Amino acid sequence: MKHRIYVVGIGPGSLQGMTLQAREILDGCDCIVGYDTYINLIRHYFPGKEFVTTGMTKEVERCRMVRDRALQGQTVAIVSSGDAGIYGMAGIMHEVAAGEDIDIEVIPGVTAASAGAALLGAPLVADTCLISLSDLLTPWEKIANRLDCAAAGDFVICLYNPASKKRADYLEKACDIILRHQPADTPAGIVRNIGREGQEVTVLTLGELRKMHLDMFCTVFIGNSQTKNIGGKLVTPRGYHL
Amino acid sequence: MKHRIYVVGIGPGSLQGMTLQAREILDGCDCIVGYDTYINLIRHYFPGKEFVTTGMTKEVERCRMVRDRALQGQTVAIVSSGDAGIYGMAGIMHEVAAGEDIDIEVIPGVTAASAGAALLGAPLVADTCLISLSDLLTPWEKIANRLDCAAAGDFVICLYNPASKKRADYLEKACDIILRHQPADTPAGIVRNIGREGQEVTVLTLGELRKMHLDMFCTVFIGNSQTKNIGGKLVTPRGYHL
Ligand SMILES: C[S@@+](CC[C@H](N)C(=O)[O-])C[C@H]1O[C@@H](n2cnc3c(N)ncnc32)[C@H](O)[C@@H]1O
Ligand SMILES: C[S@@+](CC[C@H](N)C(=O)[O-])C[C@H]1O[C@@H](n2cnc3c(N)ncnc32)[C@H](O)[C@@H]1O
Repeated sequence: MKHRIYVVGIGPGSLQGMTLQAREILDGCDCIVGYDTYINLIRHYFPGKEFVTTGMTKEVERCRMVRDRALQGQTVAIVSSGDAGIYGMAGIMHEVAAGEDIDIEVIPGVTAASAGAALLGAPLVADTCLISLSDLLTPWEKIANRLDCAAAGDFVICLYNPASKKRADYLEKACDIILRHQPADTPAGIVRNIGREGQEVTVLTLGELRKMHLDMFCTVFIGNSQTKNIGGKLVTPRGYHL
Repeated sequence: MKHRIYVVGIGPGSLQGMTLQAREILDGCDCIVGYDTYINLIRHYFPGKEFVTTGMTKEVERCRMVRDRALQGQTVAIVSSGDAGIYGMAGIMHEVAAGEDIDIEVIPGVTAASAGAALLGAPLVADTCLISLSDLLTPWEKIANRLDCAAAGDFVICLYNPASKKRADYLEKACDIILRHQPADTPAGIVRNIGREGQEVTVLTLGELRKMHLDMFCTVFIGNSQTKNIGGKLVTPRGYHL
């Protein structure tokens, strides 16, 4: 029997946002591995299942443990919030298991960009860039250049990991780069704790966003030159004649 | 009672890729409206439900009909494939219903970028641009500029609507723009009919992609400078130390 690992995106929060496929895979596996917060979100839906939780910054160790359990014959599912392939565990899992006789199957999920956009209205119906402001794995210069290119291309911009304690001014710096290309009254939005307790949705402008202090439970949206605030909803028209 | 419209992303194909929330909303509504192809994918899961199908390019009419039914008191769900907010019906529905006493709720889904990436491996774990090659609603010059900005920013690029009969050379032109910034051996991928009959997954290079003739059932992925082909899977390392 070929060994198998599932990397499962569980959607932004509650069971409701999970796909039927994700639920079936998690139901059927021997063991579910993940970061404490995500495991705690889903634990009660899978009673009797073996769960293994690890800390936030232990990604590589977590994947090695999953690989070793798979090689011992267990069917292991490793979970990511949202989509496992967007700033999730799918990449590092492939790297850690490279060269082993293991099939890795990624089960996609609803990413924070989609779930947040749905709460805000429809900001992403035009061409969009997804950019993470975390410099743990990408140097700030590269992030800054991407922000500049995204704004120069008049993309809608969706920011993951918009802030943390160590880099309190990154969101401000990001907004300043975008402000070189877009006016301060460009509509923007913040969604926090999507699908979880304490869900918050804020519609504001790029100029106002620049002054906000956010945490890592937020995803940020900045419109392109066409994005409008229609009755409190963020909508990017695609250009239909109405 | 306030009137309500649901705009529901049904995921890339089969029922398995739909969220539990999407299924519940579709189960509970009076009437499901959508493009023939998508309705045919889901019709048999909701026996006894009223379905209204319309042709491909009738988006505005379709939304007007949904609005009018909602104002008459029906709970109407309008469906999009994938995520309703990514090149889907969420935007135009908000525009058509603007100013009416109607709550529009968007139910997010798994978009083709996530579902296709899962089949290819993990190409999107770094910053990504989503670009549609359709020039029905966006002039080619704007699309070309976005391709140039995306490649200049070393983004992973995911192309929706990569081809159609009228614009057979767009994919070639798009690749030529990206080739100004990335070498011809940059790993790339094509996924066709995700989650549907005839699903196909192809890993190739940017140089090879340039010569392909694709149809509208494909989504295309072009790696950034870091993306690798690991045992036939497309993986973009995020920079963890292994
Ligand atoms: C390491 S990334 C994981 C992204 C995840 N794989 C996805 O596809 O949504 C963490 C970032 O995702 C975003 N995010 C994930 N879940 C969220 C939620 N429930 N509400 C708001 N933002 C969320 C935030 O920007 C957060 O800082
Ligand atoms: C009008 S857009 C709709 C996108 C959809 N709302 C989503 O989020 O996936 C149509 C394009 O989406 C992509 N697409 C949608 N469903 C697909 C599937 N099942 N397989 C491959 N590509 C798909 C293709 O690029 C197609 O040309």
